[in-house]
Amino acid sequence: MITLASDFGVPYPAAMRGVIASDCDARMIDITHQFPRQDVRTAAFWLREVLPYYPPAVHCAVVDPGVGTDRSALVVRAGEHALVGPDNGLLLPAARQLADTVEVFEWAYDDPGSATFHGRDVFAPAAATVHDSGVAAIDALDRATRAEEHVDRSFPEPTIEESNARAVGEVLVVDGFGNAITNVPGTVCESAMGGVIRVNDERVPVERSYATRDPGDRLVTVGSHGNLELAVNQGRGENAFGVTTGTTIKFEWEIDEKA
Amino acid sequence: MITLASDFGVPYPAAMRGVIASDCDARMIDITHQFPRQDVRTAAFWLREVLPYYPPAVHCAVVDPGVGTDRSALVVRAGEHALVGPDNGLLLPAARQLADTVEVFEWAYDDPGSATFHGRDVFAPAAATVHDSGVAAIDALDRATRAEEHVDRSFPEPTIEESNARAVGEVLVVDGFGNAITNVPGTVCESAMGGVIRVNDERVPVERSYATRDPGDRLVTVGSHGNLELAVNQGRGENAFGVTTGTTIKFEWEIDEKA
Amino acid sequence: MITLASDFGVPYPAAMRGVIASDCDARMIDITHQFPRQDVRTAAFWLREVLPYYPPAVHCAVVDPGVGTDRSALVVRAGEHALVGPDNGLLLPAARQLADTVEVFEWAYDDPGSATFHGRDVFAPAAATVHDSGVAAIDALDRATRAEEHVDRSFPEPTIEESNARAVGEVLVVDGFGNAITNVPGTVCESAMGGVIRVNDERVPVERSYATRDPGDRLVTVGSHGNLELAVNQGRGENAFGVTTGTTIKFEWEIDEKA
Repeated sequence: MITLASDFGVPYPAAMRGVIASDCDARMIDITHQFPRQDVRTAAFWLREVLPYYPPAVHCAVVDPGVGTDRSALVVRAGEHALVGPDNGLLLPAARQLADTVEVFEWAYDDPGSATFHGRDVFAPAAATVHDSGVAAIDALDRATRAEEHVDRSFPEPTIEESNARAVGEVLVVDGFGNAITNVPGTVCESAMGGVIRVNDERVPVERSYATRDPGDRLVTVGSHGNLELAVNQGRGENAFGVTTGTTIKFEWEIDEKA
Repeated sequence: MITLASDFGVPYPAAMRGVIASDCDARMIDITHQFPRQDVRTAAFWLREVLPYYPPAVHCAVVDPGVGTDRSALVVRAGEHALVGPDNGLLLPAARQLADTVEVFEWAYDDPGSATFHGRDVFAPAAATVHDSGVAAIDALDRATRAEEHVDRSFPEPTIEESNARAVGEVLVVDGFGNAITNVPGTVCESAMGGVIRVNDERVPVERSYATRDPGDRLVTVGSHGNLELAVNQGRGENAFGVTTGTTIKFEWEIDEKA
Repeated sequence: MITLASDFGVPYPAAMRGVIASDCDARMIDITHQFPRQDVRTAAFWLREVLPYYPPAVHCAVVDPGVGTDRSALVVRAGEHALVGPDNGLLLPAARQLADTVEVFEWAYDDPGSATFHGRDVFAPAAATVHDSGVAAIDALDRATRAEEHVDRSFPEPTIEESNARAVGEVLVVDGFGNAITNVPGTVCESAMGGVIRVNDERVPVERSYATRDPGDRLVTVGSHGNLELAVNQGRGENAFGVTTGTTIKFEWEIDEKA
């Protein structure tokens, strides 16, 4: 199985599918091709969240503002998974989520005639090759050599003061529903569930699900990624809370404080 | 085969695909993940229109504003098809279109850690289980019990006075082209085809196809769903007629009235 | 394999997939269903660019403003590929790219009950039939007869004066990133690469890749289609250059002119 992810929109991914269908008989599944354009950070976040639900596969992911420069192409082995894409940190957070041991290979490629679409000309053929060789045999591929260095990427960690019932984090990403997903794990304020929490000094209900509140009402919930998120039932949390990617969020809670 | 439909946009459906690919070897086909967000009515309409074109399959459909509340999960058997999704009426119109006999099962699920993404944590695994057991064997699954009650949903019926050459209905949905699809069957004014019809007292041509009119001109036609729709050739009928979902439409016609 | 392409958005393509899944066991791959609505020219361009990357397949492509009129349905044979769609020139540019010899067949179809969705009622069944018969056997199908005439379509050719280091072309299409793709082949100014080129009398750097320039800076590059395109690193070339489909572009270059 080969999964495909990019910020290409339409119709460029169709060329990648054609190349892979020409090169091998892998089953193809699209993750999405609607990642925000050239936003490596957001794409890296979603790959980290989504790929762990997949069975062993080759994941070809391309958000690549540096296409055509001297940035390397990488194949990353994470257990029985392989990730193929540009050397800009896109793949690493997902790889670490997929396996404890992550091995990074540099993938040698010939300069394609055009230097603007490595998704089609470099990464799709690489994914097909890795698929056919098998993830275990990456070492044996001529084009793959252990990377001496590569770009890494990680997400900011929150500051959690459990004894003070307080955490300071930030918004990692806003999803398509407008939910602002923070980096603060939902576990920290488990005791406040059904009560209230202070979000940047404002009291907000903290609930297990959106629909516990009336439509249009704000809430804090634990999203499907396990982190606290700022939401509005049937509305857009990013707007109601006035936050966006990178906004600092301070959460404060009390065990016995009920709404 | 498992079909997938939702209002999740990106990238959440990718997690559902991963779960299903991990759990079973079903072929997966996306209906769409771009249903208008949290609009159960519109999604129920389109599922009813589209699913009858499929061979026997498990259809996993999730538009679920009540996720995480005590609403049930359902598996609906409709002949050789099964539909899996939330208990909010989403599935029933399609099920009745798929088979004369519809059986509704409640699907027992464990409370997932997060209560915001049952598409991934409840419905996708349920669809995989039903796929592997086979639709005929739903009764034998431990998690499935005959539902004593469930939420139903139907679409408003038009008032048709054939002898008065008159029908009053409403707009059920506006499609992506801007065509306003009503609940009035196209058969009622078959005799007016090629002539004119009155739409809320305005005379409008009634034609078999959009391109019979000049670009930008309004028309009434019989859409691919069999109902009268308000359209504009190469334009948006909803705007030209000033209608939206739920707008009441009165049609009046005369057999010999030619444009 | 059957590929699917259209301007249908959602959810209409799901009905086409259902019809094909009911009629045959072909693997289905979506090219896109987000072609600009009713824009035959742009869709024809992208099909020409993308389909050559596919292995032999039946390509069902529908952008069809004339649906329901007397326009014919076509099956076009291009080597081991077949293309199925409306007779409006959509298929021909791709067919000529796929094979040197192109044969055009008219596909006889019964008037469907509704005349507004031939994608579902005419072209999807035709694609399934051609898939099952095999491309080599199109001649033997009852519904297929050699077309005596058909609508063709081609793209404007640029005027290239190599000796004057000058080319005049036009913007063929703007892609989703905002890159304005011209009809001038990148080979003409290979010698200027890394230097500058004049675009309608303005000096613009000409580079192998977007990221060679600073974010927001304009450049000319050779796109993945092999033609000159007007781009902005991490921005939208169409806006920065003030061009759109059909805009005339004059390129002038000098071999030794460095930025």
